[in-house]
Formats: sequence, structure tokens, C-alpha cells
Amino acid sequence: MRVGLKIEYEGTAYGGWQRQKNAPSIQQKIEEALQQAFDVLCRVVGAGRTDAGVHAYGQIAHFDIETSIPAQRFSYILNQKLPADIRIVESWEAKKDFHARKKAIGKHYRYTIFQAPHASAMERNTSLHVPQKLNIDNMRKAAEFLVGEHDFSAFRSVGSNLVGTVRTIYRLEVNQDKNHIYIDVWGNGFLYNMVRIIVGTLISVGKGKLDAQNVREILDSKDRRRAGATAPAKGLAMCEVFYDEKNEEYPAK
Amino acid sequence: MRVGLKIEYEGTAYGGWQRQKNAPSIQQKIEEALQQAFDVLCRVVGAGRTDAGVHAYGQIAHFDIETSIPAQRFSYILNQKLPADIRIVESWEAKKDFHARKKAIGKHYRYTIFQAPHASAMERNTSLHVPQKLNIDNMRKAAEFLVGEHDFSAFRSVGSNLVGTVRTIYRLEVNQDKNHIYIDVWGNGFLYNMVRIIVGTLISVGKGKLDAQNVREILDSKDRRRAGATAPAKGLAMCEVFYDEKNEEYPAK
Repeated sequence: MRVGLKIEYEGTAYGGWQRQKNAPSIQQKIEEALQQAFDVLCRVVGAGRTDAGVHAYGQIAHFDIETSIPAQRFSYILNQKLPADIRIVESWEAKKDFHARKKAIGKHYRYTIFQAPHASAMERNTSLHVPQKLNIDNMRKAAEFLVGEHDFSAFRSVGSNLVGTVRTIYRLEVNQDKNHIYIDVWGNGFLYNMVRIIVGTLISVGKGKLDAQNVREILDSKDRRRAGATAPAKGLAMCEVFYDEKNEEYPAK
Repeated sequence: MRVGLKIEYEGTAYGGWQRQKNAPSIQQKIEEALQQAFDVLCRVVGAGRTDAGVHAYGQIAHFDIETSIPAQRFSYILNQKLPADIRIVESWEAKKDFHARKKAIGKHYRYTIFQAPHASAMERNTSLHVPQKLNIDNMRKAAEFLVGEHDFSAFRSVGSNLVGTVRTIYRLEVNQDKNHIYIDVWGNGFLYNMVRIIVGTLISVGKGKLDAQNVREILDSKDRRRAGATAPAKGLAMCEVFYDEKNEEYPAK
């Protein structure tokens, strides 16, 4: 049976989603929980490899296991074994050909900025503190240039092994609610650090270091050195992964 | 000069506001930061003694210090010395007779319930997980009985050294936003554990273990054993402390 998982985690204590030598990872913790609960070694495949310190409300993963236990029970069983900063929100029996990463057709990420003279104690690990007031209108204008299908070479860190540099951003929103500024991005896929470099660039626009129009030029240049800094991981969260619902690979909402 | 402080903290790592032998406290951390920055021993007086694990967005405190540094600078200076889970949101020069606790005329506390099949990873330290659906209408009906001036003997833990058991609740609201249920209470003062016992009792009503009408009977009985359990500290946050603004003891918003 192939089991699908929807996972929420605070990434602060982890080296990221993917198993690695020098730090605990979310993938490792879930695989260990499976081993503890069922005494089997399962490889858990995630929809995306979130970096160290990046959070998730809706990471999706799958694994295969031979068992008569209903897939819906796995969330309860695994949550008993997992640390409190990783929670299985939902588990379900997936189709045999479901693949959390390969079948994903889009993702929604949110970046949270805390804009106030001082950082937030409560949100110190889940937001980026920016003391300056940001020009939201200019950030929105800049964001418009990034929506659509583009070569995002200027907005990626090298070292990624993904194929191609053309991606489509469906929506890119900048919204303010009192001290919080949320940058929400929906796309069919993201290059390495792409969301964090977009955020860093929009923050530069918000601070007046870049004009909105510059962002179009940066995009056209395909030159990473011209874009803004990579915004810190802690403000980023993977909110949702999208699949083709007609294929019934993901349970109905 | 008397300096006023508005303080945000996540209480998870602390034994509470007040200095104590066996655990670090918020008060201690602020006093230590003052000592590091100014090489003086100051006693910091807080508006209320939050328990271990209770958070604050707007704890108010004061202390006296001889210095020519403007009071507004203290937030920046102290935040450089304080751990990231304690932030001075604002500092100001208070009137000589300002007293964070004695001059307080009211407080607003918020209790956060996370109502979903599984707990939240991101809010594991700042909300109480309740898997059952709660009847919000019945919780609101019960809350109405508690608004006003009452003897809250049934809603306090013994061991408090406060004078009298009569307090006034100005407002007590129960609101739901998707998976979050917020219980907000405004009062002129609170007995030991009073907010957490009110929350525990309202949760019992929400679960159907108590009728709304029972809460009136519990209040009249003045018998702590009849009220609900003391809700866990981690869901509670001190949001705001109120002072008489006519006395200009607290800076204008």
C-alpha cells in the first residue's frame, strides 16, 4: 500500500527535510517513527526539500508499506512517535502511481516579515524581523514583473541539480496586517532558494534600494548577482502542494 | 528616573515572571541584562506574575535607575543583552509615582485552543490542543454568567496571597477562526490561576461535560472543586495591561 502524508513542522531544530549526515532531518524523523512503530525500513519521499530552518504547514510525502492497518490511522500512530515539532496532519491511502514530488503540479509558499522597531519574541523562529517601514505598493509593483513563465536564473542559488531554469509563477502577493507582511507565492516549481531570493529582492524594493522596474531588468539579466540577498530561512513556510485532483491522488478537501 | 517597559516573551523556557530558585525567570533575565548593560542592580517590578510557560505580548514593568540615557533607548540596549525569547517592545520615562502593578486598573489575557484532530507543530508551545469539536455557543452562554463583579472563589487555586476574592470581569469572549478558538478576558484583576480555571471550565462546557447554566451554579457555590480543570499554562498569554491614561503614566498609543 502506498500511504500519503500531509505534514506540519517547525524547521528550526532541523537541517532541512532531507536526510543528511551532520544534522537531524524531518525525513529521518518520520522514517525513524515508521521503524519504531512497524519495525520496517521505509523510504519517505517528500514533495519538496525544504532547507534548514524552513517550516511547513502542508508538506506532502509518500511511502510504501505492507500492512492491514488503515492508512488513515498512520497519522495517529506516527504522531505518538514523532517529536512535537513534527506533526502528521493527515494520512491516506494513495494511488499506486502517486508520487509526492513527481506528481506535484504546484506549490504555495509563504514568507513572513515582522515589521516593527524590535523583533518578536513569540515569532523569533518563524518570521524575519525588518525594523524599517517597507513600501508595500512598490513591492507589489515589483512582484508583478515576476508573475508568469520566466527564466528565473537571476533568482536561484547555484548548486541545484534541477533541470532547466524556466518556471511559472501563478500568483505573487504582498499583504500587510499590522506588524506582519506576508509574501505569498504560487508556482509550478521553484529553483533552489528561488522564493528566498525573490523575497530578498522584494525587501530591497520595499526599502527603496531597488526600484520596482529594476526587478524586471534583474529577471531579464539572468544574473544572480543583480538580485537581492537570499532572505533567511526562518521566515519561509511551505503551505500547500497541489496535485491534479482529477487523478484522485490527493483526498478531497 | 523611573523607566517603564512593555515586554513580549515566550514563557516556555522559564519558571515564570518572578525570580525563583530552581528555574530561570523573565524578571531575572531583565535584571541581569540591566546589570550587564549598566553595572547596577535594579529591581524590576512587573504588572503581573505570569506562571511557568505563560506568555506575554504586553507585560508592563518598571524600575529606577540613575542615568542620562534617554528612557526610549533602553529597549534597544536591553534587547542586545536579552535572549531572543524576551523582547522589550517599548521603553519610556514613567512618572515618579508610576507602579506597574499597583497602578494597573485592568488586564487582557488571551487563551488559544487549537481544535483539530492533531496538535499543531508550529504552535505546540503557544496553544492547547483539543481534538474534540467544542460547542462555541454554549461556551459563550456560560461565559456570560462570569461577566461582572463576582466572588471568584470557585475559580482560583489556593496558595495565592492576594487580598479578597471579589473581582470584576469586564468582557469574556469566545471566538473561533478555523482551527483556533480564542478565549479573551478583560478584568480589573485576576486571582491565582483564575483565567486558566475559567478556560478549563469553558472547555468542559464546550465538550458537553457541563451545561452553561452549571457555570452560574459553580460561581455561586464558591467551591473550587466544582469548576473545571486548570487549563495548561502554554495556551495563555498576557496581552495588555491598562492604566489610567489621564494620569499619563503610560505613553499614548
